[in-house]
Amino acid sequence: MNRRELEQYLHEHIPLSRAMGVEVMKADWNGVTLRAPLAPNINHRETVFGGSASAVAILAAWAILYVRLHQEHVRCRLVIQRNTMTYERPIASTFEASSTIQDSPAWEKFLRTFARKNLARISIAATLSCHEEQVGKFEGDFVALTMKQD
Amino acid sequence: MNRRELEQYLHEHIPLSRAMGVEVMKADWNGVTLRAPLAPNINHRETVFGGSASAVAILAAWAILYVRLHQEHVRCRLVIQRNTMTYERPIASTFEASSTIQDSPAWEKFLRTFARKNLARISIAATLSCHEEQVGKFEGDFVALTMKQD
Repeated sequence: MNRRELEQYLHEHIPLSRAMGVEVMKADWNGVTLRAPLAPNINHRETVFGGSASAVAILAAWAILYVRLHQEHVRCRLVIQRNTMTYERPIASTFEASSTIQDSPAWEKFLRTFARKNLARISIAATLSCHEEQVGKFEGDFVALTMKQD
Repeated sequence: MNRRELEQYLHEHIPLSRAMGVEVMKADWNGVTLRAPLAPNINHRETVFGGSASAVAILAAWAILYVRLHQEHVRCRLVIQRNTMTYERPIASTFEASSTIQDSPAWEKFLRTFARKNLARISIAATLSCHEEQVGKFEGDFVALTMKQD
């Protein structure tokens, strides 16, 4: 799966990603970076609406799991369970959300647990940036469930 | 300010609220309830995208402050500082986010602190519901700043 395929998937299946103007800048094993412009995400202060910042961060965090599980040929349903978001600075233009999984043991444990129990939890972090300055951070817990539980 | 005025304000100044189909069902001193349909907020599982759920909750929490400060004739800038969101159940249709401020002393302290320091912080909770069942909860910290700091 390359970044164009991921972008097309997001726009087709999560229409809000299109409404927010989300572009996929990077999507590989090492990380996902999404970009969104100010205009569709603006608020009454002419900065990015917190709900948009949060939604793009959630997408970036979900997408790194989606990309990795696709590469591992693991079929599952991913559900977000909780998240925290910290807004560090107002965002006055195009912004990016970048997720990565630096903790290899946590990833290996997530895969092993899912293989054994058809249920596993992992925490994913993402950072928001604007003009290469960090403007916010996100942390969320996702659960992988077997498709059979649909 | 009535609910139609708040809805018009949101749609004009925060275009994502319009893209999400947000309607204001209630907006008074005691609470704000926003409603959003599934279609513009759907995800790849045909339930509500977590980013939409979170964004509507943020709006509901911000709006109760906006409504109350308007009634108190307090002019200030409101900034979200952090939030947590818990997704308790998948949301498979139209959903609502309701905010309220039950803690009167916290509200009074917020007003007094802002009057004295031109800077005050308050924590606001909101619940998400679908068919009158609770499906998620939100808690966020907002800061009021003097307009002069713009």
